Amino acid sequence: MRLTTLSLAALVAALPSLGFAQEVDETPLNADIGFIFTTFMFLVTGFLVFWMAAGFAMLEAGLVRGKNVTMQLMKNVALFSLASIFYYLIGYNLMYPGDGWSIDGILGAFSPASLEPVGLADTEADLTYASVGSDFFFQLMFCAATASIVSGAMAERVKLWPFLIFTVLLTSVIYPIQASWKWGGGFLNEMGFLDFAGSTVVHSVGGWAALTGAIILGPRIGKYKDGRTVPMPGSNLTLATLGTFILWMGWFGFNGGSQLYMDTAGNVSDISRIFSNTNLAAAGGALAVLILTQVLYKKPDLTMVLNGALAGLVSITAEPLTPSLGASVLIGAIGGVIVVFAVPMLDRFKIDDVVGAIPVHLLAGIWGTLAVCLTNSDASFVTQLISIIVVAAFVVVASAVVWLVLKGLMGLRVSEEAEITGLDMTELGMEAYPEFSNG
Amino acid sequence: MRLTTLSLAALVAALPSLGFAQEVDETPLNADIGFIFTTFMFLVTGFLVFWMAAGFAMLEAGLVRGKNVTMQLMKNVALFSLASIFYYLIGYNLMYPGDGWSIDGILGAFSPASLEPVGLADTEADLTYASVGSDFFFQLMFCAATASIVSGAMAERVKLWPFLIFTVLLTSVIYPIQASWKWGGGFLNEMGFLDFAGSTVVHSVGGWAALTGAIILGPRIGKYKDGRTVPMPGSNLTLATLGTFILWMGWFGFNGGSQLYMDTAGNVSDISRIFSNTNLAAAGGALAVLILTQVLYKKPDLTMVLNGALAGLVSITAEPLTPSLGASVLIGAIGGVIVVFAVPMLDRFKIDDVVGAIPVHLLAGIWGTLAVCLTNSDASFVTQLISIIVVAAFVVVASAVVWLVLKGLMGLRVSEEAEITGLDMTELGMEAYPEFSNG
Amino acid sequence: MRLTTLSLAALVAALPSLGFAQEVDETPLNADIGFIFTTFMFLVTGFLVFWMAAGFAMLEAGLVRGKNVTMQLMKNVALFSLASIFYYLIGYNLMYPGDGWSIDGILGAFSPASLEPVGLADTEADLTYASVGSDFFFQLMFCAATASIVSGAMAERVKLWPFLIFTVLLTSVIYPIQASWKWGGGFLNEMGFLDFAGSTVVHSVGGWAALTGAIILGPRIGKYKDGRTVPMPGSNLTLATLGTFILWMGWFGFNGGSQLYMDTAGNVSDISRIFSNTNLAAAGGALAVLILTQVLYKKPDLTMVLNGALAGLVSITAEPLTPSLGASVLIGAIGGVIVVFAVPMLDRFKIDDVVGAIPVHLLAGIWGTLAVCLTNSDASFVTQLISIIVVAAFVVVASAVVWLVLKGLMGLRVSEEAEITGLDMTELGMEAYPEFSNG
Repeated sequence: MRLTTLSLAALVAALPSLGFAQEVDETPLNADIGFIFTTFMFLVTGFLVFWMAAGFAMLEAGLVRGKNVTMQLMKNVALFSLASIFYYLIGYNLMYPGDGWSIDGILGAFSPASLEPVGLADTEADLTYASVGSDFFFQLMFCAATASIVSGAMAERVKLWPFLIFTVLLTSVIYPIQASWKWGGGFLNEMGFLDFAGSTVVHSVGGWAALTGAIILGPRIGKYKDGRTVPMPGSNLTLATLGTFILWMGWFGFNGGSQLYMDTAGNVSDISRIFSNTNLAAAGGALAVLILTQVLYKKPDLTMVLNGALAGLVSITAEPLTPSLGASVLIGAIGGVIVVFAVPMLDRFKIDDVVGAIPVHLLAGIWGTLAVCLTNSDASFVTQLISIIVVAAFVVVASAVVWLVLKGLMGLRVSEEAEITGLDMTELGMEAYPEFSNG
Repeated sequence: MRLTTLSLAALVAALPSLGFAQEVDETPLNADIGFIFTTFMFLVTGFLVFWMAAGFAMLEAGLVRGKNVTMQLMKNVALFSLASIFYYLIGYNLMYPGDGWSIDGILGAFSPASLEPVGLADTEADLTYASVGSDFFFQLMFCAATASIVSGAMAERVKLWPFLIFTVLLTSVIYPIQASWKWGGGFLNEMGFLDFAGSTVVHSVGGWAALTGAIILGPRIGKYKDGRTVPMPGSNLTLATLGTFILWMGWFGFNGGSQLYMDTAGNVSDISRIFSNTNLAAAGGALAVLILTQVLYKKPDLTMVLNGALAGLVSITAEPLTPSLGASVLIGAIGGVIVVFAVPMLDRFKIDDVVGAIPVHLLAGIWGTLAVCLTNSDASFVTQLISIIVVAAFVVVASAVVWLVLKGLMGLRVSEEAEITGLDMTELGMEAYPEFSNG
Repeated sequence: MRLTTLSLAALVAALPSLGFAQEVDETPLNADIGFIFTTFMFLVTGFLVFWMAAGFAMLEAGLVRGKNVTMQLMKNVALFSLASIFYYLIGYNLMYPGDGWSIDGILGAFSPASLEPVGLADTEADLTYASVGSDFFFQLMFCAATASIVSGAMAERVKLWPFLIFTVLLTSVIYPIQASWKWGGGFLNEMGFLDFAGSTVVHSVGGWAALTGAIILGPRIGKYKDGRTVPMPGSNLTLATLGTFILWMGWFGFNGGSQLYMDTAGNVSDISRIFSNTNLAAAGGALAVLILTQVLYKKPDLTMVLNGALAGLVSITAEPLTPSLGASVLIGAIGGVIVVFAVPMLDRFKIDDVVGAIPVHLLAGIWGTLAVCLTNSDASFVTQLISIIVVAAFVVVASAVVWLVLKGLMGLRVSEEAEITGLDMTELGMEAYPEFSNG
């Protein structure tokens, strides 16, 4: 009786999908089962990748100084919202341009994405993949992750609105165009470029945009003085650690969902391999940095260790499926080592990357993309390298143009006074921790 | 060999469900597959809605002043625990009263919920919906969310125990009775009231209870002085932002799970639409507030932007399925706009809502419920409006009675001295951040 | 067209699993469906248990004093990474030793775990359970949880490297050996010992290792003075509360996934029971402590309430399936009561357990293991007791040997000066909250 009552209540509450109500009692058609599995897999991995937006926000809010925390939070909430809307309006169609780069395709690209009709008629639908809604949801999160990478590197000095306008262009045009070259079936894909979940397509793209921006923007006031690099420690390491754990968790969705199918025992086993490999690459990255900073500096460095875990994750992203567990540890560990050496190197060039986004996402992303050649017999080093360079050239040029135009039009940096006082009070009139005195 | 060993170990560890052991090797019956899909969907979306309890706790702990943080955390942990137990003891049966409001139904309502027997015998079970355990788990989280809404509005001055007693009555009686009118197949449902995931049934109910409580309780000392509203900024905006991201994530489960079925390609596609629409409504709410506060105040306001995202989420909750992606953005954006104008309006009436729960959950909830008429041809504006009013009248009267009785019996507010010193030290003898000096 | 395009892009991106590409259009074989369900269930519950690593990190970082927060974060990130790698290298094979403790089995145990080949050939695979990759992922998280328990009890005084070396031995040898006695089909299992998800196998093991370590290490300087216990309040109760909510959420995966199968309606209904019971046990634990501390001390104690929820979770872990909802509340509540009385008792013995890990994980773990006799007719009190004692003896002796050897070789404690100044500055040269003055 209980179940019957519930079913009734449920049926009624499910009224909007009434078209289906009459099928509730029927066994799903066999052809539907794989579709349901894959679609649900995208929803689950998609909310994990969504969660990475919170991870980036916490990581960055923890690594900036207390006077700029509110602004960093604002940028992260706003960039995710903008990415959501502009990827829907423009990016999604641009990334999957249908029948290639015909004029029709290009025009068609600039129309809002549309999902299946409510209560999809099973008999008509193509059930070989997943629902458009789930694919859109999943792909959107990758686009937003790309934008999140940029905000960290340029923190503590870039104005809110130019940064947000850049985000709009990154998520509606720059990211989708290059992503279509690989994931939209474009020329890099046809060349044989391998990038399973986006060491290049996502992470290096965010990294190149961040690098370009950081160079054009210049370092924070006081960061490089008399040839020395002045440490500006993050204000809240618990937040930074929380952000890292969130990103680590989200990465299971990021890499796992990129299998794109969960309709067979083989595919779900592959996703399992990916989860395990992803976890071990992060562990490898963290431990490599722990040991290396202990040896080099006698004191292990927590922010470096956190970035080591993230670099491990970026490194395995280009190919999380084929490596053995041991190879995954090593690939991740090398990613971590790269971070330890790249951070001071960037400082030598006076490139001020507040949270370490460039070593983690760009350099480990390049490493991961090349490392595919070590584990995949069908990978070509030359193809991987060319693809990295092509994407780099496009993103650097496009980003530089956007940043320079924005600089000319409205300026990129807050005033010197605002930067010294802190962006929170001067730009937002609000402190993140108003009751706690700054030391 | 490995798999065999594992299976053995697994079998043994699964002893309590031995009744099923002999079926492990068999293919699931076709009739079971839809049941497994829907049940697992409830477990996944249910833990996402559970996660919202943490989101409310973090949001509220971030938006109160440092001296009241421990109390706010205590209330959130305690209210979720009470909601869990009293929804089990009374609420769940009251909400789904079986064969209607007969005397038997009413008496039957006050017996503890019971789940399926362990190792449900497949052949006997009704497999058209989902397991009772998963339905109970999912529905419980909605009840708890309603209670969470109240705690934010009445923060920083209400005593712990009266608040908790109110929570018991809200979750065991007030929420379930009105929820049964819609989701239990009651008269609002029969009238044609549409409220997919609870803009009215959950959010406005929490909002009305909060409004009633905030009025009876009165504003915090010093909040309204000489006709001015004194800002009392939240103590920790990183926490508030984290809480918002958690709620945003949990809302995928809140709205997505309310599809109630995942047994067909059509249903899983609908859930995909819901995930995508929910995300865009939040983005729309956040961006509308970002732009509006920039225009109105020249400085965008982070706490408003966070509440804008939440208002967007509440707004889409009454109908997350049928709107297009674009309509979802707009519905959410209007929810955000409502927040910007409602917050000062409440202050004008000297209604002191510490975290903005009334604009977000009540006003955006009403808006969302009415907005159903814009996207659903089968919705009636009059029916929606009447339903809102009926629920409002019931919740306001019932809440007022409870609050006034509690006020008479034990008092609702802490002493003036305790409020000024802070509830943490006076009521709990414990500070949330004992080592950091308050500014 | 859109779907076709997507499928194309997806297919191409899924190149590495090309072996399967030709099957994408086919209906999954019936025999595969249960395998996919169970495997995906392990991935979902596995990432929930992963999330507990973040929960432990936040809980512990919130409960130590501000001067030791960075070190506590470092230990948590490092221990999870070490657990991941050493459970892969040694522990996993040791725990599931194949054909028992033959010489071959022992030698075989010390070889890295290996997963299924990429693109598992369905026809050859044993599809009665789940993919090795998903099982490894899930089991690894349990091993890591065991290690997390230890770090809390020994916080604020143990040196980083001895602690990490202990972690290596715990996760590669101590945990897997005793876990194999139950979950690897060993002698405790054959005796009829019941421990569904590890009240003994996981929680008491962590607890015994923590107790042994805390005794050998001695209390923090100043903790016990002139016969009094000096309170050393945690520095950040919002973090501690967040950590508790994270652990609560993760526990759904911890207990739910331990059903080990989701291939039938009966199994998924059992998992639903487990989710509901787990939640109610946590609620029972929290409320029991809330009421008890109110009665005993007149002021409810938030850190006790948080530990009460955790103790409730540990208590239900030995049997989360068979109890009714009401029994689950009571089992959890008794766990909470144990915490309230055990914390001062440990202090009387001058055992300094910084976060309360011993009452929560060890004592509630023992209670939960014995409580199985109340709900399972096939449980034997004597068998449960003997199993608890056998595991205790093994873990205490093994841990003591490791701790004492480490003490002799490199010392376990930081210098007195370092402990007073704080481990963050002296051992790591880094503060968690550098801008906020310590009160």
